[in-house]
Amino acid sequence: MVSHKQVSNLVFSRDMTVELVQDSASDQIVARSARVSTVGEKSLISNTDDSEISGLINFLLRERHGSPFEHSTFTFYVKAPIFVWREHMRHRMASYNEESGRYKELAPEFYVPSQDRKLVQTGKTGAYVFEEGTALQHAKMMKNYTETCSVAYNAYLDMLKVGIAKEVARGILPLNIYSSAYVTMNSRALMNFLSLRQSVEGSHFPSYPQREIEMVAEKYEAIFAEKMPLTYKSFVDNGRVAP
Amino acid sequence: MVSHKQVSNLVFSRDMTVELVQDSASDQIVARSARVSTVGEKSLISNTDDSEISGLINFLLRERHGSPFEHSTFTFYVKAPIFVWREHMRHRMASYNEESGRYKELAPEFYVPSQDRKLVQTGKTGAYVFEEGTALQHAKMMKNYTETCSVAYNAYLDMLKVGIAKEVARGILPLNIYSSAYVTMNSRALMNFLSLRQSVEGSHFPSYPQREIEMVAEKYEAIFAEKMPLTYKSFVDNGRVAP
Amino acid sequence: MVSHKQVSNLVFSRDMTVELVQDSASDQIVARSARVSTVGEKSLISNTDDSEISGLINFLLRERHGSPFEHSTFTFYVKAPIFVWREHMRHRMASYNEESGRYKELAPEFYVPSQDRKLVQTGKTGAYVFEEGTALQHAKMMKNYTETCSVAYNAYLDMLKVGIAKEVARGILPLNIYSSAYVTMNSRALMNFLSLRQSVEGSHFPSYPQREIEMVAEKYEAIFAEKMPLTYKSFVDNGRVAP
Amino acid sequence: MVSHKQVSNLVFSRDMTVELVQDSASDQIVARSARVSTVGEKSLISNTDDSEISGLINFLLRERHGSPFEHSTFTFYVKAPIFVWREHMRHRMASYNEESGRYKELAPEFYVPSQDRKLVQTGKTGAYVFEEGTALQHAKMMKNYTETCSVAYNAYLDMLKVGIAKEVARGILPLNIYSSAYVTMNSRALMNFLSLRQSVEGSHFPSYPQREIEMVAEKYEAIFAEKMPLTYKSFVDNGRVAP
Repeated sequence: MVSHKQVSNLVFSRDMTVELVQDSASDQIVARSARVSTVGEKSLISNTDDSEISGLINFLLRERHGSPFEHSTFTFYVKAPIFVWREHMRHRMASYNEESGRYKELAPEFYVPSQDRKLVQTGKTGAYVFEEGTALQHAKMMKNYTETCSVAYNAYLDMLKVGIAKEVARGILPLNIYSSAYVTMNSRALMNFLSLRQSVEGSHFPSYPQREIEMVAEKYEAIFAEKMPLTYKSFVDNGRVAP
Repeated sequence: MVSHKQVSNLVFSRDMTVELVQDSASDQIVARSARVSTVGEKSLISNTDDSEISGLINFLLRERHGSPFEHSTFTFYVKAPIFVWREHMRHRMASYNEESGRYKELAPEFYVPSQDRKLVQTGKTGAYVFEEGTALQHAKMMKNYTETCSVAYNAYLDMLKVGIAKEVARGILPLNIYSSAYVTMNSRALMNFLSLRQSVEGSHFPSYPQREIEMVAEKYEAIFAEKMPLTYKSFVDNGRVAP
Repeated sequence: MVSHKQVSNLVFSRDMTVELVQDSASDQIVARSARVSTVGEKSLISNTDDSEISGLINFLLRERHGSPFEHSTFTFYVKAPIFVWREHMRHRMASYNEESGRYKELAPEFYVPSQDRKLVQTGKTGAYVFEEGTALQHAKMMKNYTETCSVAYNAYLDMLKVGIAKEVARGILPLNIYSSAYVTMNSRALMNFLSLRQSVEGSHFPSYPQREIEMVAEKYEAIFAEKMPLTYKSFVDNGRVAP
Repeated sequence: MVSHKQVSNLVFSRDMTVELVQDSASDQIVARSARVSTVGEKSLISNTDDSEISGLINFLLRERHGSPFEHSTFTFYVKAPIFVWREHMRHRMASYNEESGRYKELAPEFYVPSQDRKLVQTGKTGAYVFEEGTALQHAKMMKNYTETCSVAYNAYLDMLKVGIAKEVARGILPLNIYSSAYVTMNSRALMNFLSLRQSVEGSHFPSYPQREIEMVAEKYEAIFAEKMPLTYKSFVDNGRVAP
């Protein structure tokens, strides 16, 4: 039997980490790059008054002129479980550098759903609705999560110890182990991500994301709202349709 | 303790599945699309003699004119463990539709390294060399793989049984569970994949892929060689540099 | 003065050429690739009855699940004036090989608007409305088009004749000279193109394309409708929103 | 006959404009994002000593690990003739917003080759060599360029004057008219551009770009060298192979 002795080292976390590493994002560059189409070179020295550009930005979002939103970029440091990364990396309009299970011994930090994570799905494929789990379901989930992670991580260490390569040993680690990465996206790609990976009342096109990737999206959204407030407002006002 | 009773249902496999679902790939379309640059419309009715186009295709590959290779597309059905998909999906110039752990109860099929999978890495990060594992290492690996998969899959079923959502229960499944997907790539993207995901003597730029994704690449390569023999020959003759 | 003598050689055309060179497009592959998410391997042998898959395809388009439409590809041969290519090549999700003005003497074929091309724009930037031109406007346009093309093409030939490189001589050719290219797009990118490059009553998001690229889009649309009838019907039924 | 009277307004230029509008580019972010693969979170606080990271950056470029170079972005304002834009926009890994001939009356500024632009091509398709033009060839070129531009621009204004839409009138403007755009590229895409659009002694893969796009590339390169000196040095040292 795989030993359970090292269970005490495991960390179980309920949260996602999103930090802004750098950005070149602003409402101003949206307006300037859009204005080049009508005024050419003068866009470089164009007036930067917010009240003037908010109308332009709203027009661009409403009419789905997406390219002016591609000049604003964000680089995030993100820590999330692998099953979230699996969904995240389906977004191809982004740049990724991730922690490597081939080069690095992976740390024993595992995601476990919190008490307010709804556990029961109803409705049909593609449009699930989620409901609260019972205390029993939460207890079962917690037990099975922690025990499986413990078994798996100890089996992993056990293989490393006898000299088996990291890339082989990691094969039996579970999908809820955390991994970290740098992610760079422009604001057009980011709005696409936010529109698909959050379920928000009033969205023009409803989405049914898994809760855990939505937690990442919410953190992206807060940073986006701060860095590009006019673009963000228009995005929300226009039903969260990515241009 | 998580029960082990259902262990008998588990399938352990050592192989990757790659099937060609459809293609629009040919050496001819490479030649035609390249010729449009010098003869325009006449490319549509241009001579299709292999001996004539092999020189052109070789020139394109040698000089790294990549765009004529983008008109040939392949759609594959692929079954591979999730840790392979994780690497595969870093290739963004491709289209993917994958089995969903949110919508579908995942089948208990797990990858386990075969006897000839080298288990011990030496050398430095980014350029590992692999050596045979000992009998002891193989035994340890096999034991830890099968036991962990059994624990994890039973914990998964156990959560499903009490009504916990599939997307939550799958969190503790291991990275070596198989998943299947449709993958569409053009021949330019495919050559990039083959060049990075295989370690082949005589390559102009050496690569150090994980063995398991190389197994997928080898199957892609056999299909590519059959469908586009002139392109394939030039790719190999020119040191496997993707154009 | 630049000589006008060779004016008789010039060809003035009013149309766009679109020919389907090859495709791997079908409603069936949309359904199969979508089904992999719920049935995995069984998608390969799934029932192919049209009545059964039309509901699935409609669901995918309505809910904006775009990836299953990426496995169907079309390769077109297109001849259009350069100002159309300038707009066309802003679509980055496509593969292009075009006639080269560096390698090839360009033929004297020029686009000239037909009698029913509306010549007068009203309304505001980004949402122009077009009205019929007067006979005088048409005459003026025709005269200026033909004369300028003649001057420009003769100046081009004149430079070639004295040994000036093609890539230098072509600098003064007008934007309405025809150029031909191979274009490969998947059906998701194609729907995006059709949605943006045609002005169709009842579209969920209105577009204001230039008439000449719309002429290309109309020819693409006819081929798309024939090759993927169920997808096409759903695209139209759902307000021509590209998924 | 089209009138020549407004010829005096025309501007003939010999140069390309490239201005850096904004960037989030640095050698540091290359190193940090690369280090995440081996040290995870610690990459955020990793030492930023140049001597330490130059070896890492050189390793990444030599081994063609391209993704760490995708987090550094540059936004340029560029003014160039349309025939240059035609080549530039074939680079799809970039974001563009360009002056619009549909929305804006285009200014009468035209590119004309300078005295040191080599006018005569020898060698074969795809690998042309250029030689000095004779005085006669330069005179012929200058005459044909200036006269054709004058005819074309006056025909353009003449159509605008009678109320013909800008998008129709611009059809006969020549390919050497200047247009301006905002261009955003990451440093990986930029190295690809520099490698293909410059002819530099000692390049591992030789390129044969048209001189005019090379003039743009040279200006990009100067900015790149200043913002990412270690990356630039490694790019040059490794034969200008884009990773």
